Amino acid sequence: MMKLIIDVMGGDKAPEETVRGALAAIAEYGSRAEYILVGDEPQIRKIAEEAAASLDGIRIVHTESVITMEDNPVCVVRTKKDSSMSTALRMLAEGEGDAVVSTGNTGALFTGAMLIVKKIKHLQRAGIASILPLKNHVLLLDTGANVEVTEENLEQFAYMGAVYMKKLYGIKKPRVGLLNNGTESHKGTPLQQAAYARLSENDAINFIGNVEGNMVSRGVCDVLVTDGFTGNVFLKSVEGTGKYILSLLKEVFLSGAAGKIAYLMVKAPLSKMKKQLDPNETGGAPILGISKPVIKAHGSSNAKAFKNAIGQALSYAESGAIEEITAAMAEFTEKKKEDKATADVAPQA
Amino acid sequence: MMKLIIDVMGGDKAPEETVRGALAAIAEYGSRAEYILVGDEPQIRKIAEEAAASLDGIRIVHTESVITMEDNPVCVVRTKKDSSMSTALRMLAEGEGDAVVSTGNTGALFTGAMLIVKKIKHLQRAGIASILPLKNHVLLLDTGANVEVTEENLEQFAYMGAVYMKKLYGIKKPRVGLLNNGTESHKGTPLQQAAYARLSENDAINFIGNVEGNMVSRGVCDVLVTDGFTGNVFLKSVEGTGKYILSLLKEVFLSGAAGKIAYLMVKAPLSKMKKQLDPNETGGAPILGISKPVIKAHGSSNAKAFKNAIGQALSYAESGAIEEITAAMAEFTEKKKEDKATADVAPQA
Repeated sequence: MMKLIIDVMGGDKAPEETVRGALAAIAEYGSRAEYILVGDEPQIRKIAEEAAASLDGIRIVHTESVITMEDNPVCVVRTKKDSSMSTALRMLAEGEGDAVVSTGNTGALFTGAMLIVKKIKHLQRAGIASILPLKNHVLLLDTGANVEVTEENLEQFAYMGAVYMKKLYGIKKPRVGLLNNGTESHKGTPLQQAAYARLSENDAINFIGNVEGNMVSRGVCDVLVTDGFTGNVFLKSVEGTGKYILSLLKEVFLSGAAGKIAYLMVKAPLSKMKKQLDPNETGGAPILGISKPVIKAHGSSNAKAFKNAIGQALSYAESGAIEEITAAMAEFTEKKKEDKATADVAPQA
Repeated sequence: MMKLIIDVMGGDKAPEETVRGALAAIAEYGSRAEYILVGDEPQIRKIAEEAAASLDGIRIVHTESVITMEDNPVCVVRTKKDSSMSTALRMLAEGEGDAVVSTGNTGALFTGAMLIVKKIKHLQRAGIASILPLKNHVLLLDTGANVEVTEENLEQFAYMGAVYMKKLYGIKKPRVGLLNNGTESHKGTPLQQAAYARLSENDAINFIGNVEGNMVSRGVCDVLVTDGFTGNVFLKSVEGTGKYILSLLKEVFLSGAAGKIAYLMVKAPLSKMKKQLDPNETGGAPILGISKPVIKAHGSSNAKAFKNAIGQALSYAESGAIEEITAAMAEFTEKKKEDKATADVAPQA
């Protein structure tokens, strides 16, 4: 049985919403896992009591220090080693659990995952992958961990993203796109041009070519790779535009009595539409490339969002995705060595 | 009186919608300008006749060749020198008119503007600026002409963008933001870090700092500078997300009889909302940095959008924006030379 390590501190609404989310996850996923809550024990007990939820059989690891959104990420391995996040990651590294979920400081979680849990062997870079709730679920990576990348990094992101969508979403051959400013192969900076060539040649990746910013919402790909700078701008632009349009729509329905009646008439399909666009529904962002599952839940996660992120961590741990990526990286590296050895002994032209 | 040169060929709906748009512009802006239509004369006359519009007093310059969306941009100065676009740009360069508007191939229009009309003296790079129809009108540049830029390019884009928003939108001190993956000054790649420092030190620019993708729609800035790669991705992401949400909204109102009635009840404010989000309402994209006004209208422009782009070209030509940018670039260059001369004769520390 999987053991989930849940950091209930950090984030805008912790520990109230995170503890409630954890309790909801325990109620929903119950016997699929054992649960370890890391954070301020008296607060955890108080919130559980208020929610009339039992903590029987749930391990609580008490911590006092919390990494805030303002903290420098490296504090996770330096000044705040006793924080809930550091403790959770250390427990994961030491085999006391199988996955970590946290709403805390993204930079600190990434740094801690890299330095405490460590990368998959032979992999160059880990990346933060976010699910975009558009026409289909699109896994976008990197969304901020690596502002500058190489074409080989992008190729590895593509491979990892495809394994994730295959294992967790059941998509047989996930369609991988490269975010670019045009569809032709010569588009973009030298980085995109080189990545296009590499992705085209890699038989293990179902590369569908360059994808422009306005194509993503049409459902053309399942995985979208880019550097962390562009990925972050793209992700936030989708979020911001969505929020803005929904705010305009609110005004439409608040415009007089007719608007309010109209709202009541379409309330159900409208809620469905909002739910479809709600990033809280898609769970959290996996840090792909770490040797064990680490899921970053949105900093503003409410109980439902955090529950979904915990569910995702459980699915990720059960999926075998990391094992498949680890094996592939070892194989690629082996093949590269062989190719190099062959090239070294080959006669010079 | 200003003379507007209107390329009515090229684009998805040319020449029908472009000629109709030109006729609408002539009806609306009338005596503010003289109008020169460049394109297939028999077709222009036929469309005007069908629209029962007079072409009296309007100069028509007949051309037969058209640059298509698939053409290589350099054809504008090589194989398709006799196209409507090349002819229009040449007339502008030779002083036969004061501004060019075209819906044609963006790459070709940019290339032609650079090689035929030429850049403003001392300016390093021209850029394509697009107006985002968000909470306020935000001028985003570059949106595709320069996939790689330097921090000095970004500083010049910021200056040009601010002059444009001041002269054409009447904003006294346009707020300039730098598109980035976080608000802190150390965020982004070395390019954004260096640009942040330059923009902070330039007293002629009202720099408000880094702007994240989700902040733009909240109305925090009037001008947003970035490289052409990120700008293109950002622009298209806003467009695509907007279209996607409006398509979901359409489904809401098509969901049964209640939805259809609700639609009728909020039709007016809903139309207003759609109009607010419609890029066709904001006119075209100025190619900032060219020594004379060149406006790129959206390739899918309908008559109304093209009319708005023509109005924008007229305002741009009348505004004195280019004169102000030209004077500033000369002054900066002069100052740089002086600083260098001072540094050369200064005693070494």
